[in-house]
Amino acid sequence: MLSDIRIVLVETTHPGNIGGVARAMKNMGLSDLALVLPKVFPSEQATARASGADDLLAAARVVGSLEEAIADCQVVIGASARLRTIAWPELDPRTAAARIAGQPEGTRTAIVFGREHSGLTNEELERCHYLLHIASNPEFSSLNLACAVQIVAYELYLAAGRGAAGRPGAALADGEQMASFFRHLERTLHDVGFLHERRSSPSIMRRLRRIFNSAQIEAQEIHLLRGILTAAQHSAAGAGIRNAEEN
Amino acid sequence: MLSDIRIVLVETTHPGNIGGVARAMKNMGLSDLALVLPKVFPSEQATARASGADDLLAAARVVGSLEEAIADCQVVIGASARLRTIAWPELDPRTAAARIAGQPEGTRTAIVFGREHSGLTNEELERCHYLLHIASNPEFSSLNLACAVQIVAYELYLAAGRGAAGRPGAALADGEQMASFFRHLERTLHDVGFLHERRSSPSIMRRLRRIFNSAQIEAQEIHLLRGILTAAQHSAAGAGIRNAEEN
Repeated sequence: MLSDIRIVLVETTHPGNIGGVARAMKNMGLSDLALVLPKVFPSEQATARASGADDLLAAARVVGSLEEAIADCQVVIGASARLRTIAWPELDPRTAAARIAGQPEGTRTAIVFGREHSGLTNEELERCHYLLHIASNPEFSSLNLACAVQIVAYELYLAAGRGAAGRPGAALADGEQMASFFRHLERTLHDVGFLHERRSSPSIMRRLRRIFNSAQIEAQEIHLLRGILTAAQHSAAGAGIRNAEEN
Repeated sequence: MLSDIRIVLVETTHPGNIGGVARAMKNMGLSDLALVLPKVFPSEQATARASGADDLLAAARVVGSLEEAIADCQVVIGASARLRTIAWPELDPRTAAARIAGQPEGTRTAIVFGREHSGLTNEELERCHYLLHIASNPEFSSLNLACAVQIVAYELYLAAGRGAAGRPGAALADGEQMASFFRHLERTLHDVGFLHERRSSPSIMRRLRRIFNSAQIEAQEIHLLRGILTAAQHSAAGAGIRNAEEN
């Protein structure tokens, strides 16, 4: 699983941070690094901070655009310091790692980190399937780039079953299963009359996405939840049919 | 809880790392830093890498020995890169954070990090009640000091309950609210015909409890979820009423 994950750094300003990221990655068994328009690279500072992870720096791909960096990836996750109003599914590092660990083997996943001071643009975030947010002190929330990668890489390492604290073996629902579930949920909420013109459907669905995305749902549990939705749909429609038959 | 935790750095060589540690701490709501015989401090490099956490640097206590740094602490945890043969209890960062979060309020806890290249000596580790080990790639296991502190601080922040995906201050549902919700859920599953004699209700409810209990649901979200249950109940019963009226 760890070899299917690419770390993408977009327009990094300080070469020392690139070295720090390479070290943080190698510490946690990651090796695929792509650099989108780094300001200075290669650089002695990067090599110094890599502290022995220079093989990752030597193998890093330098590309001219985010598109190029993620072209062969099925899943793209964008790190975002701010809580966005975009209705994208937002994951914390632990949930993101669990989700990635639950993907079929060979699913190429990119985790994209933005500029030191301004992060990723909205346009860049829109190319991502998920946003990744690291909880932090609201009064001092901007993490050093290498430290942010370190936290995510640490969670990935544990989720890959390399540390003691992971939940290895639990096959989590993948992105497609979650997306189908949310579509089914929204249809059902209409069918039972909970969602209609008067209620703001996007904000309700955003809440529900947060709840279910953070629960690390197993593939098997998705079947259970969808069975419940189907029962609610049938009972909403079927009560009418039964009544019609009785009359 | 976070204000009861002190980070102690022993004989740090690179002042930049001290600044990086201050930033990592402040990002996660920690503020108490003690420096045992730092090679260079204060330093411009430390201030630069602190990136705005200079208040922590200004307040840092510089002391001449580990004993002095931990004198007022009831619990001392020593970071150790190597798996020691010492028969000390060894904790991973998540377990250590959970342990600390479970201590009575006011328990002063020190987490001690050693030198960049050689860590803590056996003599220093013997002054600790627990060893802390961060799982990492056995072929490249030495983390940057600031990154190691970042992982531990991140786990502490989550354990302190600050981490519900960047939702500061959100009141989580309490045990009574969750219990009422699960009763309402079970009733609804009967009403819509999902639970009946043929299905094993206890094991299904156990699954559903796991899902919703792990989602850290806010009090407000419980109202949303119960609103959905009520709608499903009404539609299951109400379709019949509507039909009866139409006929």
